[in-house]
Amino acid sequence: MKKIEGGVTAAKGFFAASTAAGIKYKDRTDMAMIFSKTPCKAAGTFTTNVVKAAPVKWDKEVVTNSACAQAVVVNAGIANACTGEEGYSYCKQTADKAAELLNISSDAVLVASTGVIGMQLPIDRICNGMAAMVPELKDTKEAGHDAALAIMTTDTHEKEVAVQFEVNGVTVTMGGMSKGSGMIHPNMCTMLGFLTTDLAIEKSLLQEALSEVVKDTFNMITVDGDTSTNDTLLIMANGLAENEVITTKGKAYDTFVEALYFVCEFLAKKMAADGEGASKLFEAKVVNAKSKEDARTLSRAIVASNLSKAAIYGCDANFGRFLCAMGYSGAQFDEKDVELFFESKEGRLQVFDKGTPIVFDEDTAAKILGADEVTIFVDMHEGSEAATAWGCDLTYDYVKINADYRS
Amino acid sequence: MKKIEGGVTAAKGFFAASTAAGIKYKDRTDMAMIFSKTPCKAAGTFTTNVVKAAPVKWDKEVVTNSACAQAVVVNAGIANACTGEEGYSYCKQTADKAAELLNISSDAVLVASTGVIGMQLPIDRICNGMAAMVPELKDTKEAGHDAALAIMTTDTHEKEVAVQFEVNGVTVTMGGMSKGSGMIHPNMCTMLGFLTTDLAIEKSLLQEALSEVVKDTFNMITVDGDTSTNDTLLIMANGLAENEVITTKGKAYDTFVEALYFVCEFLAKKMAADGEGASKLFEAKVVNAKSKEDARTLSRAIVASNLSKAAIYGCDANFGRFLCAMGYSGAQFDEKDVELFFESKEGRLQVFDKGTPIVFDEDTAAKILGADEVTIFVDMHEGSEAATAWGCDLTYDYVKINADYRS
Repeated sequence: MKKIEGGVTAAKGFFAASTAAGIKYKDRTDMAMIFSKTPCKAAGTFTTNVVKAAPVKWDKEVVTNSACAQAVVVNAGIANACTGEEGYSYCKQTADKAAELLNISSDAVLVASTGVIGMQLPIDRICNGMAAMVPELKDTKEAGHDAALAIMTTDTHEKEVAVQFEVNGVTVTMGGMSKGSGMIHPNMCTMLGFLTTDLAIEKSLLQEALSEVVKDTFNMITVDGDTSTNDTLLIMANGLAENEVITTKGKAYDTFVEALYFVCEFLAKKMAADGEGASKLFEAKVVNAKSKEDARTLSRAIVASNLSKAAIYGCDANFGRFLCAMGYSGAQFDEKDVELFFESKEGRLQVFDKGTPIVFDEDTAAKILGADEVTIFVDMHEGSEAATAWGCDLTYDYVKINADYRS
Repeated sequence: MKKIEGGVTAAKGFFAASTAAGIKYKDRTDMAMIFSKTPCKAAGTFTTNVVKAAPVKWDKEVVTNSACAQAVVVNAGIANACTGEEGYSYCKQTADKAAELLNISSDAVLVASTGVIGMQLPIDRICNGMAAMVPELKDTKEAGHDAALAIMTTDTHEKEVAVQFEVNGVTVTMGGMSKGSGMIHPNMCTMLGFLTTDLAIEKSLLQEALSEVVKDTFNMITVDGDTSTNDTLLIMANGLAENEVITTKGKAYDTFVEALYFVCEFLAKKMAADGEGASKLFEAKVVNAKSKEDARTLSRAIVASNLSKAAIYGCDANFGRFLCAMGYSGAQFDEKDVELFFESKEGRLQVFDKGTPIVFDEDTAAKILGADEVTIFVDMHEGSEAATAWGCDLTYDYVKINADYRS
């Protein structure tokens, strides 16, 4: 497998476009479209929030009941959540309009929205936006890049990635883009993510691979503990690579899952590092836990804690906060088994040794914590399972951004 | 029942003292002692954090296995958590020294610590502090007030309260003090709280009353979602009011529970409003929920959400964030049943009506949210249970305080 340039248009037969539809932002693009020239198998994972945005409900329908999907329409600025029947009707109108413009079926159109909750979409502008995009659909790198820019909200930069891998001697390409900066917390996938591939694979295996990979990638990031109403991760596979269709698990499936893991982890880490107001990537690696679920729970608790996040911002070697967060995470353990280390490109330092604090050099600790990517490494000495979670520090800017997001 | 002046020394036979022991702070008091001239029935509730501080382990022993307790020794500055065998031995040394100075048994001494995790206590200074306090124990209002000041960490003011109520024609007094500003989250009681009363009551009923009342008071506050390793709420009842001993539930017990509820709610709200960096008290009232547990879960999720808290700070009428938090709380509901209102002394405004956003006047909303106590009122229309949770806004100062708490 190798990383290549590009994003959602990297795989064969995928086109993208974007436009400034004036949904809520001025002077920037705020709508994007992805289109495959042939029908795709589609799979998706969605927010676990009880309050689901209208497009989440729409996409679940499409992913579950449509044999194929062929297009995605995304807008930034308004989330179309908590908008009742009226909001859901706008999903349908969006899909109908896209279907008409693209000459496909409405139930092959996926829709996604991100932005303010509790506000109705200006459906005329959405429709005008689609009419402007369809003639501009292109399979160039630039078109994919511009789409990644158009779906941002408080993100400071676009997130896209592409890879190539071999399946039975055939080169397969996969690309993706995502957005997400606030209202980010592990519980399915707390953001919008769109993956495209020219792989030929059965629909049920595509869904299984996505559901599995999301657990250790997008579901392991957190910015603020707030699981959004709109979280959506979609993958479309159009089969144009012309590999023998993957219908069972085995070497070809494993190769695909490995590439999918790479793409998802890449985008997930980008989102964590670009958390609202973040100044650094904050990683927690838990090893030798009793179970995989414990390892996930413990590592997520560390990066989710406000007190941990504030300490990371301040380069404050206050390791008790990480132990405290592990303690209330829900996982059971004995602090007398635990070793805790600070790690970054500046070095590695043990600060807690099986129940007892270690006297350490504060300057060394501050130097390690001052790096732009910081890891809390925890050895539980209770089993053999490991997990990694990603978050960011809590800064003044997080508060600033969120104290007045709507205006 | 009436509220009176005073705190932990309000009830008959209770004495307090405080001193500047130099544990970690300079130029301020940092140790307090409470002493009852006669043995007390004692009850307690403690943190659910798996990582329990040494004094929590000590106090659980005392509350469970000792027939009586007679003194409490508290220090601020160092939490004595994650300190291994050495840390626990300091609890024992503290109790032994207090017992010697007060001429009581070691297992009648409760200890409590608050402050930095993962640092050992300077036991010599703790012992010197107790030696300085014992000769100064007084049953005056001032002594109780000074004790409430001595146990603060990042608190901006002391928290104390006292009430009187009648039990079978006998006047009973109850007082209390608490501290807590950060690492505050509902899961038993996320702070230190000390209640004293001259009520005569059986030990098992005292514990039952405390465990019941804590659920709707201290366990309903949150500042930052971080459940501390040290949370402790203790009550001591010495019986000096000379009421007929309460041995069964009934009118006398109910009167006591009512007073206990008042005292606990009073202190809990004070703690929420004094959350680290807080500029206002943020209350969520959920009514007509399917179950009591749902009502508690929903109201706590609203006040615990970083995004909600930042919106409250910014007086931003972004009600979608409250619905989003309810949605990921774990409680099941249909947004089509929900009504949501903003309330404060400045007025009341409905913003969401059974699944549909209401177009409201932004200036009116901003005025209501600009008050120093703000309520989000939610009618679930699904049952008849209600709960209230208390928190505070998320401000720049929270980040500032916690980015460098240790120095």
